[in-house]
Amino acid sequence: MSQRPMPVFDRWRETTEPDRVVVLSRKGEFLFRQGDPSEMFYVVTEGRILFVKESPFGTPLILERLLPGEFVAGFAVIFDFPYPAGALADCPSRAEGYSKSRLLSAIDQDRELRREVHTELGERFRMYQSRLLYANMPIEVRLSQVLVALSGRDPDQVALGGSPVPSATLRDSIAITRTVLAQMCLTTVETAIRVTRMWEKAGKIDLSKKGVIRILDPVFFCDQVRGHSPRA
Amino acid sequence: MSQRPMPVFDRWRETTEPDRVVVLSRKGEFLFRQGDPSEMFYVVTEGRILFVKESPFGTPLILERLLPGEFVAGFAVIFDFPYPAGALADCPSRAEGYSKSRLLSAIDQDRELRREVHTELGERFRMYQSRLLYANMPIEVRLSQVLVALSGRDPDQVALGGSPVPSATLRDSIAITRTVLAQMCLTTVETAIRVTRMWEKAGKIDLSKKGVIRILDPVFFCDQVRGHSPRA
Repeated sequence: MSQRPMPVFDRWRETTEPDRVVVLSRKGEFLFRQGDPSEMFYVVTEGRILFVKESPFGTPLILERLLPGEFVAGFAVIFDFPYPAGALADCPSRAEGYSKSRLLSAIDQDRELRREVHTELGERFRMYQSRLLYANMPIEVRLSQVLVALSGRDPDQVALGGSPVPSATLRDSIAITRTVLAQMCLTTVETAIRVTRMWEKAGKIDLSKKGVIRILDPVFFCDQVRGHSPRA
Repeated sequence: MSQRPMPVFDRWRETTEPDRVVVLSRKGEFLFRQGDPSEMFYVVTEGRILFVKESPFGTPLILERLLPGEFVAGFAVIFDFPYPAGALADCPSRAEGYSKSRLLSAIDQDRELRREVHTELGERFRMYQSRLLYANMPIEVRLSQVLVALSGRDPDQVALGGSPVPSATLRDSIAITRTVLAQMCLTTVETAIRVTRMWEKAGKIDLSKKGVIRILDPVFFCDQVRGHSPRA
């Protein structure tokens, strides 16, 4: 989710044979289901994995959208509780799994590895807290917050005037359908389409490539997240 | 937040002199501010502490409400990032602080202590995920979800039909003002008053004691959280 560099983690993976390799050849295939015992620590190696929580009200909520190099459900594995959400492919994907005991002993033995994994868990925890803060905002603000986060900007740092993210890590071309965007904000796909079309007409985003949202005016979206009214 | 027993943690605290004791004699006094370096791991020993996140939109969000025996901002201390929210007294309160290095070395040395702290962090992480799921529900559902959680029921277990919480740990008399309740749901105090008055008239809660909400019909609130319509 946060795409910060994790050199020790990457080296550990390069030198450690996974216990399982899972190929998800079709969109919608599950890596694991919500409530399954968290026996495996999975790292995405190709494609995109969505971490999706079931709702008693019907509409599922996409909690996280994970890209190659990122791990899924680390909290559940490390803190030893069942997967709190399911993981499914957003497009043909591949993941490598390490058993819980191997991950835990590696983290136990290597202080730097532990520090990197903990920092990443902390980032995700803060992301959940930030999302809660925006959850009752108007839909334009919620959609902006997701786009800002997916582009690699830290909404909290933006909001609190912290140091900007290095531009090399920004991703303004985001492979995301309006359905996924809607489920990240708990809104309907119709609403996501209506708002993104409005932004397209206003020149804030480019929707010309199917399944891709390209951010043209990042300052506009940061302003929305910061609580400023859009500029005239 | 979760009020599960933590015997090893309690024993560690009994046998470890705190580095700092903080007395907050008035409601609204800060234990620490959002953004401060997380140098201290605080445990509430008297009163109630609210963990409150600032919002760029003005209305703060109460992330957690901590009672004696519970720790504040454990994630920030253990995963080493600044306090993501401020902690302030909800009534005259007292907290004991342990330096970050002392906590980390205790956790490093005692596997059982680590397990208990990790389990509690996992519970809180799941609580944030659940709250996100309910964040866009009608206000009656969000208020119900907070009351169910504060009463010691696990909304996720209730919703997924898991094993019931032992009744000894249920707390159906909750010391909470409508202002705090509103800030836990990101709604206005007027809305919180309107809905709770409606529930009082319907015999679902008792508001006769100032600053206390007593739940009379827990099944009604569990039904709301589960997505059932209220019974006639």
